[in-house]
Amino acid sequence: MTKNRQIHLVETPKGKLGEEHFRLVEAEAPAAKDGEILVRTQIISLDAANRAWMQGATYRSAVEAGQVMAGGAVAEVVESKAAGFAPGDLVFADTGWQDYAAIPARAAQKVARVEPLSNLISIYGVAGLTAYFGLLNVGQPKAGETVVVSAAAGAVGSIVGQIAKIKGCRVIGIAGGAEKCAWLKGELGFDEAVDYKAAPVFKALKAAAPEGIDVFFDNTGGDIFEACLFQMKLRGRIVCCGAVSQYDGAPSPHGPRGVPGLIVVKRLRVEGFIVNDFDAEREAALAELRAWVRDGKLKVQEDVIEGLENLPRALIGLLAGENRGKRMVRVV
Amino acid sequence: MTKNRQIHLVETPKGKLGEEHFRLVEAEAPAAKDGEILVRTQIISLDAANRAWMQGATYRSAVEAGQVMAGGAVAEVVESKAAGFAPGDLVFADTGWQDYAAIPARAAQKVARVEPLSNLISIYGVAGLTAYFGLLNVGQPKAGETVVVSAAAGAVGSIVGQIAKIKGCRVIGIAGGAEKCAWLKGELGFDEAVDYKAAPVFKALKAAAPEGIDVFFDNTGGDIFEACLFQMKLRGRIVCCGAVSQYDGAPSPHGPRGVPGLIVVKRLRVEGFIVNDFDAEREAALAELRAWVRDGKLKVQEDVIEGLENLPRALIGLLAGENRGKRMVRVV
Repeated sequence: MTKNRQIHLVETPKGKLGEEHFRLVEAEAPAAKDGEILVRTQIISLDAANRAWMQGATYRSAVEAGQVMAGGAVAEVVESKAAGFAPGDLVFADTGWQDYAAIPARAAQKVARVEPLSNLISIYGVAGLTAYFGLLNVGQPKAGETVVVSAAAGAVGSIVGQIAKIKGCRVIGIAGGAEKCAWLKGELGFDEAVDYKAAPVFKALKAAAPEGIDVFFDNTGGDIFEACLFQMKLRGRIVCCGAVSQYDGAPSPHGPRGVPGLIVVKRLRVEGFIVNDFDAEREAALAELRAWVRDGKLKVQEDVIEGLENLPRALIGLLAGENRGKRMVRVV
Repeated sequence: MTKNRQIHLVETPKGKLGEEHFRLVEAEAPAAKDGEILVRTQIISLDAANRAWMQGATYRSAVEAGQVMAGGAVAEVVESKAAGFAPGDLVFADTGWQDYAAIPARAAQKVARVEPLSNLISIYGVAGLTAYFGLLNVGQPKAGETVVVSAAAGAVGSIVGQIAKIKGCRVIGIAGGAEKCAWLKGELGFDEAVDYKAAPVFKALKAAAPEGIDVFFDNTGGDIFEACLFQMKLRGRIVCCGAVSQYDGAPSPHGPRGVPGLIVVKRLRVEGFIVNDFDAEREAALAELRAWVRDGKLKVQEDVIEGLENLPRALIGLLAGENRGKRMVRVV
């Protein structure tokens, strides 16, 4: 009998997420049924969206109290009752926060082994592809344009800004704290960084982008969205990737001012997406990301925490903005 | 010496627009300078945007106190000091609210005479082209999809709904009052009409479109925008054409909830435009509109008021939702 550690969501949080909302449970590892694979999770991805899933159905069904907490992971196939999968294969799947999961093969995506494995969660995983498709396919920046990205030191934001630099844009990151801002400019080559904790964003942005914003890649929503909306240029594009400011606690009772008035007047395009929308272009995107990493144009920043038991704390910290780059938990 | 009646905006309204904000002034008709044409206005268009122009710069500079009130009109060339224009030519231009205007020829668009002339303001003018390009180029509805249009009995909305029907969509109009709603269904062939004055829009819309909205063509902003946003289907499109609920008085202190959260989750595209963005496709659009009118597929509804002196009252009434179809004032 194989032991299977699981972390359950024991209560749907009403306000801020805390460790009390989770419990570590020891169960038995399941067996694969027909059409399923049994996988051993290796590294679990932490994402702000994990918190949004607790609020209700999004692009997936809600995570409910009493269930194993949901989460994407790189996992190794241990047993296969599905064509095309064999023990030792590596997959990316929503295994949930546990050591073992039996999942339908069609819900698993085979991935090639890379060194280090963590890159499959960061640059060659959802974070990297989200940044790539969101910026290039949705935002469509042109060389010389001004790109602003919020949560710029996060997993997606830090890659968005670097890709925008590669494409010849002027890049401004919005992040919390002087340290992150210094890192964005010093290490990642951002042109400017705005510390939203130090001063009102609107004014600081105005100083950093006096002629306005062509592409705003938004991970936060809320006040930062509003500040950027008012500074968009004619025919600007707002890429709606996430709204982390709204996930942990009750959502704002009001939305940003200027919607839809400024969208009309400035003829903006405000567009949401998720990474799967661009599955058909996945391999081409990965090839380009690999080339940029190889040529030293794109720095990969990972924040790896050890131990399944630390998942709750890692997510809570992520929502508080602790991480720099992609946060993940190594399980084995 | 030719007399030129002008209506000036004497004060920028802080709250609701009233007749006290305008004054009728008698001046002398100007002469055309080099590169200019002198035109005699024939029919002046009334648009909710006229009110927005008083609030500040939009896609044009603000209309300021002390100036002749701005407005688009069909006008006849009386004197030309510009190549390509001759007396008797018909143009569409921002003449302002006056009998005569001397305008740079490059700011005037030559138009072919049609019978009745008022059609150049309604179906073959800004209203018709705005409906056409906004719905088809921005909204991109497919046959079988559900299209919702706000201010549905207005100049643009009434055409949007009819074009959506031509394209095989299920069409729901939002309008104020039982009479307008009955007209939308009975005369224009809308499938459903929601009377926002009779009941909360969210519930009524839910009943009219239980499976959600594919394309929302928005002329109003505000609460109606929010009600529709929450009922958009996955990959829905919101066409931001105007925000008439926000023009007359102080704009809302808050924006619609669900921005940008629902835009991410539902992968919506929310896009603003103005009709000039599609100038290159203008002739093709006019040809299609003409064919639909000729074949009885598209009904033209005009609300023509006589007399330049009635412009202020006509605009105030438009903002209160008095009109059905395109409102305009015949000057001569």
